[in-house]
Amino acid sequence: MNQVVTDWRDAAPLSKADFEAAIRNVGVERYHDKHEFHKLLHGGKLQKHQVAAWALNRYCYQEAVPRKDAAFMSRVHDRELRREWIHRIHDHDGLGEEAGGIERWLVLTDALGFPRDYVTSRRGALPATKFAVEAYVRFVVEQPLVVAVASSLTELFAPSIHRERIVGMLESYDFVDDHVMAYFKRRLSQAPRDSEFALGYVLENARTREEQEACVAAVRFKCDVLWAQLDALHHAYVTPGLIPPGAWRPE
Amino acid sequence: MNQVVTDWRDAAPLSKADFEAAIRNVGVERYHDKHEFHKLLHGGKLQKHQVAAWALNRYCYQEAVPRKDAAFMSRVHDRELRREWIHRIHDHDGLGEEAGGIERWLVLTDALGFPRDYVTSRRGALPATKFAVEAYVRFVVEQPLVVAVASSLTELFAPSIHRERIVGMLESYDFVDDHVMAYFKRRLSQAPRDSEFALGYVLENARTREEQEACVAAVRFKCDVLWAQLDALHHAYVTPGLIPPGAWRPE
Repeated sequence: MNQVVTDWRDAAPLSKADFEAAIRNVGVERYHDKHEFHKLLHGGKLQKHQVAAWALNRYCYQEAVPRKDAAFMSRVHDRELRREWIHRIHDHDGLGEEAGGIERWLVLTDALGFPRDYVTSRRGALPATKFAVEAYVRFVVEQPLVVAVASSLTELFAPSIHRERIVGMLESYDFVDDHVMAYFKRRLSQAPRDSEFALGYVLENARTREEQEACVAAVRFKCDVLWAQLDALHHAYVTPGLIPPGAWRPE
Repeated sequence: MNQVVTDWRDAAPLSKADFEAAIRNVGVERYHDKHEFHKLLHGGKLQKHQVAAWALNRYCYQEAVPRKDAAFMSRVHDRELRREWIHRIHDHDGLGEEAGGIERWLVLTDALGFPRDYVTSRRGALPATKFAVEAYVRFVVEQPLVVAVASSLTELFAPSIHRERIVGMLESYDFVDDHVMAYFKRRLSQAPRDSEFALGYVLENARTREEQEACVAAVRFKCDVLWAQLDALHHAYVTPGLIPPGAWRPE
């Protein structure tokens, strides 16, 4: 079938309801909860070293998110928007006494046996992981602001994967307990607050059909960022299990 | 005299004391407290519309600083450094109930008769002002991290200019009172905390002579950013008083 590139410049804007449905439909089609690796992870089908590889690589994503949010804020002239957005950095980096989500992620990598400085050095992570997450950081620098905001909207789909993950991993793996899953429990309340704000912003500020379609494409892009990380993990640590040079090798 | 470009790659590093002295010497030579416009401002020699032009233009700098700090943070993989740095954004943008330094700056532009949306639109500011402050935002994105940190070190020289400004402006101008000068009073306590951290970071992390010289050059660059703003103001609103197209014109 031929790929048709549509020119949206002359098209009428979608209603807000249709625009929101188009965004949510991206999640139905390609959010990473559909990836084979996640099915294995949540279904208790992975060995400990495979869960470890996931946590080690996913650290790179966690670590990139506050940098992505700072990169976004560096472009925002609207002080009220910055004041709203900054709590995302607080959520990940912590603020004062609150240690933040990255610290909670390191509790998980602790439980999986990694020294912290190995994790934070990112040197055992798959190159494809690092390329994907840095593409996300660049995306929010290079795209129009509303499109950059739209790229965060995979958070709309996050609570259900987190709920599934908490239940599935607690049931299936003896190296996982409530303490270790604290990151995901916290995100259950943080992600909806963030995605509600971002969705409202995008629905309000993407006015032309072209802008709306760019926002929908941004959600697809972000799904690609997440999916590519699981592809790389699956290829390296499940099937065919070909670990690239320099990446972490289980003993 | 011929300009000599020195190759520092083979030179021995400066001692920390000499390195710090070289940084501080940049302030002695070219911090903007030496600029003719500041002498007029602090000496009570300006008319109200000239003070207004200064406040209107300097808003662009205030507004750029938290974006600069976010741009810096977007490059920092060290969570502890981000957790330290983020309070600079809080200082400018405020956090929760605290309104922040930009709000205090707008109290000053209020007192000088500008509608807030005119100020925040930045459309009456001189192009040279905007070019200078955006060069600062880009600098911290493009330079090595330690050099980016060094560019903030003009804060070492800020408290004395702020003290001089508070005294001079309160004595000289009937449109200035304590409330209006709140921004500078707050910076008297904020700037030393920031510059102490940044100086320690730079002294510790610039190890080679080449890195040290790049840090000293960063302080010079930042002095240029500040100086260029006053040159543009002086040219447009003092002597010869040639206001470029589109910039604010006093009635």
